[in-house]
Amino acid sequence: MTSADFPSVDARLRDLDQRLVARIEAITRDELAGRRREQARISPETAELADLLLEYLEGGKLLRPRFCFWGGVAALGHEPTPAQVDALGRYGAAIELVQAAALLHDDVIDHSPVRRGRPALHVQAARRHREAGLTGSAEDYGVAVAIVLGDLALSWAEQIAARVDGEPGAVAAARSEFDALRTEVMSGQFLDILHQAGGFASAADAEQAALSVIRWKTVPYTVLRPVRIGAALMGGSQDALETLAGWAVEVGTAFQLRDDLLSVVGDQEETGKPIGGDIVEGKRTVLLARTEAATDAAGRALLAEVVGRAESSAQQIAAVHDLMVSTGAVGSVVKEVRQRAERGRALLADAVMLGDVGRAGLAALAALATDVEPFAQ
Amino acid sequence: MTSADFPSVDARLRDLDQRLVARIEAITRDELAGRRREQARISPETAELADLLLEYLEGGKLLRPRFCFWGGVAALGHEPTPAQVDALGRYGAAIELVQAAALLHDDVIDHSPVRRGRPALHVQAARRHREAGLTGSAEDYGVAVAIVLGDLALSWAEQIAARVDGEPGAVAAARSEFDALRTEVMSGQFLDILHQAGGFASAADAEQAALSVIRWKTVPYTVLRPVRIGAALMGGSQDALETLAGWAVEVGTAFQLRDDLLSVVGDQEETGKPIGGDIVEGKRTVLLARTEAATDAAGRALLAEVVGRAESSAQQIAAVHDLMVSTGAVGSVVKEVRQRAERGRALLADAVMLGDVGRAGLAALAALATDVEPFAQ
Repeated sequence: MTSADFPSVDARLRDLDQRLVARIEAITRDELAGRRREQARISPETAELADLLLEYLEGGKLLRPRFCFWGGVAALGHEPTPAQVDALGRYGAAIELVQAAALLHDDVIDHSPVRRGRPALHVQAARRHREAGLTGSAEDYGVAVAIVLGDLALSWAEQIAARVDGEPGAVAAARSEFDALRTEVMSGQFLDILHQAGGFASAADAEQAALSVIRWKTVPYTVLRPVRIGAALMGGSQDALETLAGWAVEVGTAFQLRDDLLSVVGDQEETGKPIGGDIVEGKRTVLLARTEAATDAAGRALLAEVVGRAESSAQQIAAVHDLMVSTGAVGSVVKEVRQRAERGRALLADAVMLGDVGRAGLAALAALATDVEPFAQ
Repeated sequence: MTSADFPSVDARLRDLDQRLVARIEAITRDELAGRRREQARISPETAELADLLLEYLEGGKLLRPRFCFWGGVAALGHEPTPAQVDALGRYGAAIELVQAAALLHDDVIDHSPVRRGRPALHVQAARRHREAGLTGSAEDYGVAVAIVLGDLALSWAEQIAARVDGEPGAVAAARSEFDALRTEVMSGQFLDILHQAGGFASAADAEQAALSVIRWKTVPYTVLRPVRIGAALMGGSQDALETLAGWAVEVGTAFQLRDDLLSVVGDQEETGKPIGGDIVEGKRTVLLARTEAATDAAGRALLAEVVGRAESSAQQIAAVHDLMVSTGAVGSVVKEVRQRAERGRALLADAVMLGDVGRAGLAALAALATDVEPFAQ
């Protein structure tokens, strides 16, 4: 893991954030070193699984663990003690491992070749299979390793969460948020798959379906459950938790809409994924739904020809990009991101039951997660 | 889930076993009904995931939950109270869900078409994709559903385990066994994959490698960790736990060797899988290693031609079966199963720190799990 910039001008906030990041990195290293020792007792081969996972975690922005931390600080109303930083950091490490499991399995499901600017883990494992001259299908081997490593990440995440200390009522409340996080990210993944396959019958139209997937996949596991885990663990009131949930829906939705923009109009350096990936994969985003709704017959023919086809050329992808801009779909998504970010700021400003330090941290994180200025020309 | 026969002539043991099975079924139904309600709040589509899992659990023999229960009774030294049956039943339900997750993911990894006499879940989901006329690859959809459902099963298993009540030290000790169970079954799965691919370098020969996979995959999650979870939860001594571990290595190894025999010389009705499945899949069993070691050049040529080839004919599979018998490999594996079962019986007879009721239950279960009389002609 590496600490991405924390966008705050306040040195005290930056310092707290850096202490959190250092704590999470230490907890993750220690936990995986423990798992590695256990694995080495099985065989030298299995010990490498812990190394593989530690390597996989490199380069994460720790966005979710930070939401957890700053949600906790907001509920506390004052700066956390070292023991509180540790408890929040443990849950942060657990959340980051759940995220790793979700990414490992998602990349298998979506046949994604790239993650965080490197080959996806199933692709790396398949390459090692070929290099070692092993028998059988290298692709099958890669998929198998990614599935198993995801399962281990999920189990180890839960082990970390189960050992977080604190006041029993607060620990139980945080645990229940953590349980909801895992159920929701997986159920959201299922909805996503069903939506991709055109089998999501209960949504009114394509845009509503895409928004439902965001509401039940990205929002809970990126923002809503992380901030509520932190807040519950620090003994936050029901009122505080509900306020944070309302804020999280705005920020989490804006985050996903921005992520969809990034895949089409972003910078490959920043996203770590090839530009146009969503187009090639045929991901049914709000951006695509708005483009389809706003275009003419020629535009729909272009979309039918290019979207969801792995063999699409760079030129075809550029034509879809231009269509997304010329129909005004990009502009309207940029506008919605800004509106939601603004609603989030207003909700936070009114949330007098939350402490100032925590709110400032949450606002800084939200700004990082919803910045669309690069696409706003 | 259904209760398979519990092979005991003692009515008191049978009654206890039936109470346990009823308890596990009720706990599983209640827990999944709770998850279904949570899922229904997301969307009608996600609610079906809980139903799908409940259906998937039908037909399991509850072998692992029973090992857990009787390990607990053995450590107690007397019949359990209703509260103790409940606590052991909860861990039993959790273990059965971990097992479901492992099977769901294993069947994806191995491309297995059949499980428990029905199409494997990824095959069923692919069929529903076709029947509903959804878009995209039906196979990819089936794989995605099976991966996600396995992830949910694992998370829900952990939720059940995390809420088991009891004396704090005993709960923590059981919890640590449950953590080890999950790590070991997944690491064992990885070793199995690596072994299949010929990349398992740290074992001396093919038979040793196959035995290592048994030691680190089947033994821990089928027998060793289940009995130790039960015993730890009932406050069993370190001595009791170590004795049970020694017994579990014999019984668990015998169980897997018998399972390998079943795949080649068994009855499709009983196994719920096509006979010769291990041969077609190229599973590197002890049985295969012994056949390879004992045969001549013609036999090795036959194995190379048939083993691990999906297109092998029934006639070719029958020829490999005959070779496994004529080389004496089947006979030597049957003999080893009997020897290990006998060593298990002797260990249990000497284990005076364990109660008589529990030891009788464990002995009855071991007899069920290691019965090779049908192959002994």
